[in-house]
Amino acid sequence: MATKPLVSIVSAGLSKFGRREGLMCRELFAEATKEAFERCPNLDPIQDVEALFVGQMGESYEHQGHTGPTLADWSGLLPKPAIRIESACASSGSALRTGIYAILSGLHKVVMVGGVEKMTHRTTAEVTEYLAMASDFPFEQWNGITFPGLYALMATAHMHKYGTTEENLAQVAVKNHHNGTLNPKAHMQKEITLEKALTSKMVASPLKLYDCSLITDGASCLILTAPEIAKQYTDTPVHIIGSGQASDTIGLYEREELTSLKAAKVAAKQAYKMSGVTPKDVDVAEVHDCFTIAEILAYEDLGFCETGKGGNLIQNGETELGGKIPVNPSGGLKSKGHPVGATGTAQAYEIYLQLTGQADKRQVTGAEIGLSHNVGGSGATSSVHVYRSD
Amino acid sequence: MATKPLVSIVSAGLSKFGRREGLMCRELFAEATKEAFERCPNLDPIQDVEALFVGQMGESYEHQGHTGPTLADWSGLLPKPAIRIESACASSGSALRTGIYAILSGLHKVVMVGGVEKMTHRTTAEVTEYLAMASDFPFEQWNGITFPGLYALMATAHMHKYGTTEENLAQVAVKNHHNGTLNPKAHMQKEITLEKALTSKMVASPLKLYDCSLITDGASCLILTAPEIAKQYTDTPVHIIGSGQASDTIGLYEREELTSLKAAKVAAKQAYKMSGVTPKDVDVAEVHDCFTIAEILAYEDLGFCETGKGGNLIQNGETELGGKIPVNPSGGLKSKGHPVGATGTAQAYEIYLQLTGQADKRQVTGAEIGLSHNVGGSGATSSVHVYRSD
Repeated sequence: MATKPLVSIVSAGLSKFGRREGLMCRELFAEATKEAFERCPNLDPIQDVEALFVGQMGESYEHQGHTGPTLADWSGLLPKPAIRIESACASSGSALRTGIYAILSGLHKVVMVGGVEKMTHRTTAEVTEYLAMASDFPFEQWNGITFPGLYALMATAHMHKYGTTEENLAQVAVKNHHNGTLNPKAHMQKEITLEKALTSKMVASPLKLYDCSLITDGASCLILTAPEIAKQYTDTPVHIIGSGQASDTIGLYEREELTSLKAAKVAAKQAYKMSGVTPKDVDVAEVHDCFTIAEILAYEDLGFCETGKGGNLIQNGETELGGKIPVNPSGGLKSKGHPVGATGTAQAYEIYLQLTGQADKRQVTGAEIGLSHNVGGSGATSSVHVYRSD
Repeated sequence: MATKPLVSIVSAGLSKFGRREGLMCRELFAEATKEAFERCPNLDPIQDVEALFVGQMGESYEHQGHTGPTLADWSGLLPKPAIRIESACASSGSALRTGIYAILSGLHKVVMVGGVEKMTHRTTAEVTEYLAMASDFPFEQWNGITFPGLYALMATAHMHKYGTTEENLAQVAVKNHHNGTLNPKAHMQKEITLEKALTSKMVASPLKLYDCSLITDGASCLILTAPEIAKQYTDTPVHIIGSGQASDTIGLYEREELTSLKAAKVAAKQAYKMSGVTPKDVDVAEVHDCFTIAEILAYEDLGFCETGKGGNLIQNGETELGGKIPVNPSGGLKSKGHPVGATGTAQAYEIYLQLTGQADKRQVTGAEIGLSHNVGGSGATSSVHVYRSD
């Protein structure tokens, strides 16, 4: 447990997630950075923050690329280097990884990492098309499959191989909707019943409406420093002690199996090894529940249960608040919402709150070790980070 | 001159630039990586390369995002982390910067950086629209201005303030077209006359057809290592001894002046300071001549001449091969071509060839210190690197 931290988080910010009409990415991101700056009065944004790495998935939503400098401008960071990172829905997980490189490089002492997406001003058909760009054009998009379909294939395979049920999937949704009601920044603020989830509209069998995460606007950010200077900025830093990242084929059709994400397993192994943490040490986790099946895969890929037993874990309530390993106390992508580029560092934001005792009604008592798990596309990118309280 | 290198380049690859019909980004990138691997037989691609950072500007060309893992897959690099970097036309300059962070972090000993773009299968109108996403949506794109117009504003201001002439602009085109004929991988392989350039079709006054760079398909890559292990892989590494990167407002309308790029000046200052190199020490440079005026701005922003004297520098032939400071021996974006995401590391590829004596007919005799200057959009991003032969 005494592993040397890679970097320390000295502050973090999150915009309200939801339908944020009339705002652009630059304004949403500034809302997140404002919180991070206000939370850390010892830090001078203009002088101290030396670089920005920001995840954003799609240039199509706002017909706007080259967002690094724009977001830096609106957060007062010019003329610092500002780089956009794109790894589909793992864009800001990758941005966090890049910020860790930047601090460890010694070229920077303090950097900001974050992510943003503005989605709700587009039609569902447009969003579905833009999201599909994270899957393979010639073999997936071209043949008409979209993300609900890709994850439905994984769900079907998992149900067939391990006996996971539609009820298990719905139980993930019920849990995360409950957690979302405890998070004032979550997009959704409503409880759902198992029956409501199970009888909701079919999207791509076996995935129904309540098995799918939300189309959301939002932004997130973290301020990272070299561990040795963290206490200059805060009495309660959170340390990142493990970072893993891995890649897989973009197309599902080339994978060895559909019932786990190899990139997530490889990334988790790296992050555990680097941190000296084992799955049973993790007190709280934010995982990438873009669809309910994805949370069940995450349980297994992260070692929270044996392979094939993810359905049992949720069924037994072990990932609820108060359970053995609370997962997605924020409400997750399912209820907090999934502004795709913002999700990776939004997960880290929740872990930061949890490990500093600021998570209010959803606080996991005594949480000291946290984990975040961010997935791009159908698993071609995965980024896993392990955190420790000070 | 004895500055400690940040990283070393042990190999590099470049696809043929041009109209590459029927190929996708993944295939173009594999063509570049194949050259890099073949050039470096001591390196085992599968074992040794630990991460990929790849610049690509546009998801629209191929309706394909999430390209990091796809390119890694086609180059045999799975399951290594593979991250797409987007900074408009400076995407692979930013990828190079990120690769430097990654090596200096100590988390990786060997990484690949590169870039790619596939553009020519789209209509000129489509390409113009996709490129415009690198300018500001609400204040630039929305009002109908595209990149030739933005650079025309800069050209007009420079001509007004400093007496730079249309002939000076055309002289840049003539020089770079000549250099392109010496580069078998260049898109264009033809000399042009001053008269031909000056009488070519007006695009955005004062910029004519021959003042504009090319719409091109291509890919580029570098293999970077920690300096202390470079000799395991090659007898002739090239060392990167300075890296600068800076940002500016995305919109021209917010700049203090139109006659220089502040981000380029800030980035150059950082790179010179880090390397201990001064402009007069530079033996060969690749600069971002997306339009001819941009090369003239680069002369000034990089300190190759006094502010306002860029026109004289080209007029006096000082940036030709055989001149005081040869610029764009590769042919530059103007004649080698400008597959936007690939450009930054394609510039580094040329410097690598020059500093290892492999530039054949366009070799700058005895070149020991090189510089590359990559610009995103109308200058909201700039990335400058300084190189030294072993």
